[in-house]
Amino acid sequence: MPRANDVVTKTQTPKGTVDLMPEEAWKRQFMERAFTRVFESWGYQEIRTPTFEYFNALSTGTGLELQDSMFVFQDKAGRLLALRPENTASIARVAATKLLAVPRPIRLYYIAPMFRYDEPQAGRQREFWQAGIELIGVPGAEGDAEVITVFIDDLQSVGLKDLKVDIGHVGLFLSVVKASGISWDEADVLRRLIDKKDFNGLEKALVDVNCSEEFKEVFRRLPSLRGGKEVVNDVGELIGSDEFPEIKVNIENLIEAYDLLVDYGVEDSIALDLGIVRGLDYYTGTVFEAYVPEFDLAIGGGGRYDNLITEFRTSVGVAGETIHATGFSIGIDRTLIALEKQGFGFPKRPPYFMVIWLDDSLRNLTLKTSLKLRKKGFTVISEVRGRKLSNALEYANKMNVTAVLLFGKKEVEKGKIAVKNMKTGEQEEVPISDIEKHLSKISKVK
Amino acid sequence: MPRANDVVTKTQTPKGTVDLMPEEAWKRQFMERAFTRVFESWGYQEIRTPTFEYFNALSTGTGLELQDSMFVFQDKAGRLLALRPENTASIARVAATKLLAVPRPIRLYYIAPMFRYDEPQAGRQREFWQAGIELIGVPGAEGDAEVITVFIDDLQSVGLKDLKVDIGHVGLFLSVVKASGISWDEADVLRRLIDKKDFNGLEKALVDVNCSEEFKEVFRRLPSLRGGKEVVNDVGELIGSDEFPEIKVNIENLIEAYDLLVDYGVEDSIALDLGIVRGLDYYTGTVFEAYVPEFDLAIGGGGRYDNLITEFRTSVGVAGETIHATGFSIGIDRTLIALEKQGFGFPKRPPYFMVIWLDDSLRNLTLKTSLKLRKKGFTVISEVRGRKLSNALEYANKMNVTAVLLFGKKEVEKGKIAVKNMKTGEQEEVPISDIEKHLSKISKVK
Repeated sequence: MPRANDVVTKTQTPKGTVDLMPEEAWKRQFMERAFTRVFESWGYQEIRTPTFEYFNALSTGTGLELQDSMFVFQDKAGRLLALRPENTASIARVAATKLLAVPRPIRLYYIAPMFRYDEPQAGRQREFWQAGIELIGVPGAEGDAEVITVFIDDLQSVGLKDLKVDIGHVGLFLSVVKASGISWDEADVLRRLIDKKDFNGLEKALVDVNCSEEFKEVFRRLPSLRGGKEVVNDVGELIGSDEFPEIKVNIENLIEAYDLLVDYGVEDSIALDLGIVRGLDYYTGTVFEAYVPEFDLAIGGGGRYDNLITEFRTSVGVAGETIHATGFSIGIDRTLIALEKQGFGFPKRPPYFMVIWLDDSLRNLTLKTSLKLRKKGFTVISEVRGRKLSNALEYANKMNVTAVLLFGKKEVEKGKIAVKNMKTGEQEEVPISDIEKHLSKISKVK
Repeated sequence: MPRANDVVTKTQTPKGTVDLMPEEAWKRQFMERAFTRVFESWGYQEIRTPTFEYFNALSTGTGLELQDSMFVFQDKAGRLLALRPENTASIARVAATKLLAVPRPIRLYYIAPMFRYDEPQAGRQREFWQAGIELIGVPGAEGDAEVITVFIDDLQSVGLKDLKVDIGHVGLFLSVVKASGISWDEADVLRRLIDKKDFNGLEKALVDVNCSEEFKEVFRRLPSLRGGKEVVNDVGELIGSDEFPEIKVNIENLIEAYDLLVDYGVEDSIALDLGIVRGLDYYTGTVFEAYVPEFDLAIGGGGRYDNLITEFRTSVGVAGETIHATGFSIGIDRTLIALEKQGFGFPKRPPYFMVIWLDDSLRNLTLKTSLKLRKKGFTVISEVRGRKLSNALEYANKMNVTAVLLFGKKEVEKGKIAVKNMKTGEQEEVPISDIEKHLSKISKVK
């Protein structure tokens, strides 16, 4: 008997990885095509960065949490490589090097697998697929609003209903932190608690935090400030934002983004939520996440990261002007789960056909006819096992073939073949010259 | 100043990996779509296996050479993982486990990146893309012929000209080896020399090989036996194949595959070449490789592997009947190089448009009009930097925008907008209700 370990490592995939079987791959193709169509319609163009890169590049601008979750290995010179945990750092690297001379804005998209050595959860395996965009070189709310509208357009285009995108502002949070005088370590503790909407934890943490009661009240209320434009005004009044110009700028930025989103006509799909202060460390401004009522995990998210590209440049000694950027990523696996929970009807595969020659002298005619039909856009399989007719038909039946084309001597002598409709069981003789028309008809009836 | 190592690891990709920029990614999308269309028209369905797997699974049935070229790392339990160097072993694993109850033949395809830690060469980076199929459960020449025809259909469908597929037979070679009485080690030396068409090396190696002069003459001639069906008859006569039933079966199998390929109408694209005895250790029968005159490396290849799926089963103690299989993979990067060497005209991106609002009161109308146009299938970017008109138009010009839609107060009051054709420089006023028609017209003229 083989050793147990051998059985596992020969026949199973590693934890957190899956074989996507044809039915699953078909759904993903549908989603990827829909995402691609939307991306391209907004003028975004595909970029493909390497599946693995130097650990140093991938960890630029990211926190320890993401760095710890990378699959790391070494090249033969001992340099650390890693599988990409997300695509933004790689695209920022490209923007900071190869795209400096390209006119801005630059619009890029990607659809690719990412890798994180985390405990697998719903829609987040260790290998998981993301679709996303990066809009590079737009400093203002116009950039945020465009990216959020593409985000919504994308998710609605695959069929998601009742989508809600919650929009927060890391820049506003950071300017409040600065004005409050608390330390960055204290701020990081508060950020996590606020982002998790952990009211109890937040209350406890605020006891020891070193700032005025007025600011404590702001931090306390952030996770519940959710709604329309009024929540931004609320926070402005709470703080007395006229005293703090940086806070004021961020508030105005968020309000402007909101107004633009209204102009895009997506106001029904958005809510401001000042409790959204996302995890990835490179965010500097607007941040957002998408949810549907049927699934409690974020389907995707994104935000503005105005320092990351510059960080790539300064880290190699070529600092320059700030290169602004906003982007998002959608979890394809999570979108799929959300669609399934909503009972979405994925498109079916098109009808397809099978050819069988009943006499070897008709092999040539059969194969050439099948080639012609494929060139016309039909999907045709051919019986290549030389089975008894009954066995071949049983196969066709199990495989959900729409109709079988039987090339028999008697019929071919009359210029015809027999077409057996596998749904109805009916068989009729069709002139060879009419096959195409006939198959089109059957395809539509279905 | 940053350290030199930092500069490299922050701004460059590891050796053998590349950033595929939009122009490059666009060509690949075109190729992948063409491959997908052909695969699906033959009834093949997509499967996606993990990017990394257990080293044990990926090295099943493969030789040391491929095992040495894998990117290997460990999971936290110390088990060896590797990036997949090719896709056949993974699909064989799936066939040996999850697909046992599925009616055969099973037709699967994949388009995905593969990874080998080799010295980079033309069209073969350390991360490189392959498209391929596996036809599972067809024992006879019908399976080989179908797979070779799909191979040719694929390569021709992306626009390759003067394609030649050389077809050899590892099974025939192995049965000659068996009949000659030489050892497997000797056979492996000869196989490599024959596959490389290294006539001098072969001559030298044959001196020490322990078999009759008659068989030496067969081995000597294998690399030059290239042409139509006659070369198979030649080898048959040379050996006196009637004495060796196993050799005879293989010769008949190759002749039958050839005859089927003639029936498929691809005889102009094939040549028998008994010197093709490909590297991967799992091949057992027909093997083949594709070339074009302009490029001296194989663009793709494949063959029959009747033992690999069974090896996965026996390795875990559940041996059973043999599960026959044939497949191929196409190097997408190499196909691209070959197309470029042939001066192939890749399809251009479709015409696209840019919208600019000249007055903030028209922002809403502009954004909503652009959304409508996108839903109709147009690609539209919008001016989101609030630049001076001249700067925005300069951007449009550099970005090859086809026409710019200017939303100005005066025109909109008349129910019109100004459309500036960036190719001709002409500007005309178009009723808002006619924009779609107008853009369609411009798109076609181009």
